[in-house]
Amino acid sequence: MVETRIHFHEALGTLKELLIELGKKAEQAIDRAIEGYNSRDADICFQVLTMESDIDLAERRIDELAIELLASQQPIAVDLRFITACMKINADLERVGDHAADIARRGLADMKLSPADLPVDLARIGSASAGMIRRALSSFIEKDVDLAYAVLKMDDVVDRMDDQTWISLVRRMHEAPEVLDQALDALIVVRNLARVADHATNIAEDVIFWVRGTDVRHGIGRVSPLKSDT
Amino acid sequence: MVETRIHFHEALGTLKELLIELGKKAEQAIDRAIEGYNSRDADICFQVLTMESDIDLAERRIDELAIELLASQQPIAVDLRFITACMKINADLERVGDHAADIARRGLADMKLSPADLPVDLARIGSASAGMIRRALSSFIEKDVDLAYAVLKMDDVVDRMDDQTWISLVRRMHEAPEVLDQALDALIVVRNLARVADHATNIAEDVIFWVRGTDVRHGIGRVSPLKSDT
Repeated sequence: MVETRIHFHEALGTLKELLIELGKKAEQAIDRAIEGYNSRDADICFQVLTMESDIDLAERRIDELAIELLASQQPIAVDLRFITACMKINADLERVGDHAADIARRGLADMKLSPADLPVDLARIGSASAGMIRRALSSFIEKDVDLAYAVLKMDDVVDRMDDQTWISLVRRMHEAPEVLDQALDALIVVRNLARVADHATNIAEDVIFWVRGTDVRHGIGRVSPLKSDT
Repeated sequence: MVETRIHFHEALGTLKELLIELGKKAEQAIDRAIEGYNSRDADICFQVLTMESDIDLAERRIDELAIELLASQQPIAVDLRFITACMKINADLERVGDHAADIARRGLADMKLSPADLPVDLARIGSASAGMIRRALSSFIEKDVDLAYAVLKMDDVVDRMDDQTWISLVRRMHEAPEVLDQALDALIVVRNLARVADHATNIAEDVIFWVRGTDVRHGIGRVSPLKSDT
């Protein structure tokens, strides 16, 4: 029995490590996608598409391990909450990979257009969103509920950047119809980054639920009037 | 022990019923959101926002019941797969509610602009997406793997509608800059509907995994390590 528990806790450790690894991949995919988009570098964009496939595989492996642990160990209380939190975080990180791929695809399309000077600092918003993913994962690793709450607050900042960028880009589309397509691409990229921030928020909520046994979902200011999935 | 099993199976039945109810709410929210958007009816749009709150509450209740069942019943094999499938489907339906709310918010913003004649049949795309959710849930209720596969194929149809609409709307934005904002709103609505179709796809994949023990996610059909347990 004692030995089984040791193996169980080893397996929980593996689950956590795999999730941390996946989180790093997801964060990196966002960074690279923005880099590829901004520098109009097709190679980097294609790399991101490969990264997305890796992320999908890693997600499935984690999901299988989690279900296997539920089946074989029949965990209760905090361990059960830990495993279900891992499953949810896992799903969120996989979606972050999807958003990175979406940005990379948009980058590949955009580089066929002539470069445009647009009122948008994608590197800044990208860095904020990727930073939220990184911090959400840190809060998970360190069981740091305060940090998880800080991530929830950061979401408002990214939503504000998203709203402001939206307004500026639409204004530019009106003023300079010749860059309409490029501005539209940038809008889509920004929306993707806002969704990444939402996933970081979800992760932070899962961490809080896991550590505190408190469900904070659907409670804290996540709604932006402009929020929509593009 | 026999009695416990009966209670367990009753609880599984409750879980399924709650999920079906949630699915209907989510589908209805999409239908109403498109109706509110198309008819520029603020009351309907606000109703959809209320529906989203209901959906969020229902989602949390289902999640809690699922975790409770995992904790108290320590299910294995097919029951475990059923419960984890419910948790995933639940998360997808909650997101469908988010998309409905996004469409409703976009509708509230759009009705402040003058009406525009746009080359987009939102009712048709909305009906296709909501139909996919309905069929994905039917495949879950009936354990109908063939229907679940049919849903996966329907996703391509919605994606094509999304692509075509995108092209038409962007062309219209170039030709008639005076309806740029309205076209942009319509674009966002269409993207939301495409994401709804993606969630229907996720649900169909979860149904297939649950029934067949086959993981079809990310395009790779493979046998789950849990299959031998059934």
